[in-house]
Amino acid sequence: MNFKTIEWKKDKLLLIDQRRLPTEEVFVTCTDYQQTAEAIRNMTVRGAPAIGVTAAFGVVLGSQGTATQDYHEFCQWIDKVCQILFETRPTAVNLGWALEQMKKVCQTSEGQTVSEIKVRLEEAAIKIFNEDVATNRRIGEHGAILIDNGMTLLTHCNAGALATAGHGTALGVMYTAHEKGKHFRVFTPETRPWLQGARLSAWELSKNGIEVTLITDNMIASFMKKGEIDLVIVGADRIAANGDVANKIGTYGSAVLAKEHNIPFYVAAPFSTIDLNTPNGESIVIEERSPDEVTSFHKQVIAPKNIKVRNPAFDVTPADLISGIITEKGILRKPFARSLQKYRAL
Amino acid sequence: MNFKTIEWKKDKLLLIDQRRLPTEEVFVTCTDYQQTAEAIRNMTVRGAPAIGVTAAFGVVLGSQGTATQDYHEFCQWIDKVCQILFETRPTAVNLGWALEQMKKVCQTSEGQTVSEIKVRLEEAAIKIFNEDVATNRRIGEHGAILIDNGMTLLTHCNAGALATAGHGTALGVMYTAHEKGKHFRVFTPETRPWLQGARLSAWELSKNGIEVTLITDNMIASFMKKGEIDLVIVGADRIAANGDVANKIGTYGSAVLAKEHNIPFYVAAPFSTIDLNTPNGESIVIEERSPDEVTSFHKQVIAPKNIKVRNPAFDVTPADLISGIITEKGILRKPFARSLQKYRAL
Repeated sequence: MNFKTIEWKKDKLLLIDQRRLPTEEVFVTCTDYQQTAEAIRNMTVRGAPAIGVTAAFGVVLGSQGTATQDYHEFCQWIDKVCQILFETRPTAVNLGWALEQMKKVCQTSEGQTVSEIKVRLEEAAIKIFNEDVATNRRIGEHGAILIDNGMTLLTHCNAGALATAGHGTALGVMYTAHEKGKHFRVFTPETRPWLQGARLSAWELSKNGIEVTLITDNMIASFMKKGEIDLVIVGADRIAANGDVANKIGTYGSAVLAKEHNIPFYVAAPFSTIDLNTPNGESIVIEERSPDEVTSFHKQVIAPKNIKVRNPAFDVTPADLISGIITEKGILRKPFARSLQKYRAL
Repeated sequence: MNFKTIEWKKDKLLLIDQRRLPTEEVFVTCTDYQQTAEAIRNMTVRGAPAIGVTAAFGVVLGSQGTATQDYHEFCQWIDKVCQILFETRPTAVNLGWALEQMKKVCQTSEGQTVSEIKVRLEEAAIKIFNEDVATNRRIGEHGAILIDNGMTLLTHCNAGALATAGHGTALGVMYTAHEKGKHFRVFTPETRPWLQGARLSAWELSKNGIEVTLITDNMIASFMKKGEIDLVIVGADRIAANGDVANKIGTYGSAVLAKEHNIPFYVAAPFSTIDLNTPNGESIVIEERSPDEVTSFHKQVIAPKNIKVRNPAFDVTPADLISGIITEKGILRKPFARSLQKYRAL
């Protein structure tokens, strides 16, 4: 990977500013948990796994922000820090998962000094970071088998190195296939309103030597009909127990179109994205973001005033439209309710 | 209608500059045929019927640009003017249709003076203009029956007053229903890359008192799944003899999604959009426009350099996805090959 999405420097967290890519490569420095929460909220950092890793380091920064030496007071403080970090983005499950890991470190450390627990928290965050990269590499190994020479792939949004601690999930599968010497190209829809496809996926794929073609979201159907797309691989923000997948708005439409054109549709995601407490897609909270993202474009107004706007950030793709879920433990097949349980136990 | 798309002022043509809406209401003045051709090419004016009407006035301006008094020389000159206007946009059939009408005026006027023929050409262009408005009003009358109180409609791109000499086709149906006192609302997808939905349809619908909600193109599927869309009405740039419809990129995807969700999908267009010489959608030439429209946004760069880009301006929706074609003669039903022939003879 030719860049670092998240970099931990002992008492500060460096994040590549994803709002300013691809025209500028600028880093934002977080030195406390509030700045970290704000960086998640304002999408300096985005992508479900990257948010989880960032939040874990946010807890480390939070732990450094209290002088208390009392164990219970310290645990309460960490709970408060976790709550504020948790409330930044509601849909991605990795955020809650990472914060639970951090809280557990506190909960299981009674008897140790607060200074010792702070060291433990830092170790835990670094472990979450390293495991994310290792997990993505395993997802890549399992998924690369789906990619043949000469294929044209379609993705959506950015489930790449920028969305994770490194390597990526959907794009990670492509990077692994590329490392294995496979030749293929990738169509990336721009992914309005935030343009993760145009700004982020196109940037990191081309930076890593993969041929990328940019299209607008409404061109997907036309290229599928012309037979120009062979395989779709997308990421996930949350996977329900029945295999329904919440991912960036537009994923569901892409899945319906893939079915219509008999194109395999895969989701690549770590097991930490799977939420067995969510029975199905209907129960997933979908974040609605500001109308400004739709009505303007980098401060350029593109719509009349006084009209209504809808801006759901995610949609739900029902399990029956998904050919398989590529995880670090292997490719899950239908019925997902069963394969999710089975692979989880491995 | 609270604005004029095209206004003829004897020796000049005023066009509302659709590139600058909705933030600025500015008019471009054409005083010769070259300026008119450029206005079509650079999309100062767009929309299949509006292009046809504009080109007709372009021929009038062209006729005023020659001093010859010789009939044959004059006809040759008009042919040349028509050829240059014809080459501006390849997909819309109305352009060729309007230019044929104008050429016929010349061809059938042998024996008249060139000055007399120039008057005839102006009369013909004004007739094309007036007939377009009248046709759209008849389309509106036939289509309004499809709209019930409380419905939410979806459109695509801009098939409104801005795309015609007035009233519009797909949006014309909505204006007529609105005039009849029906209450409904309209979802307008922004329609990347040129944002005709966000900039033009949202603008003219709200200017004319219809409740409009702006969404991005990749949200259509999600709102259909939630049951928030009851009816789709779009325009057409060219309709083949078998009922296949070429229209703005994204129309085909919207039609597939409508089928998946059992939502009626209608096309509103005048008979001049129907090209019986085109047997089916496969034979329609699809214009590919500049990559800049996709990689930048009002001069704001949104994609990395050195990547590939595709930018087809239109797609083809197969006849079997279309519930009906709303024309000035009535609503055509399947099989369209037969109903197109039948209604044409009316």
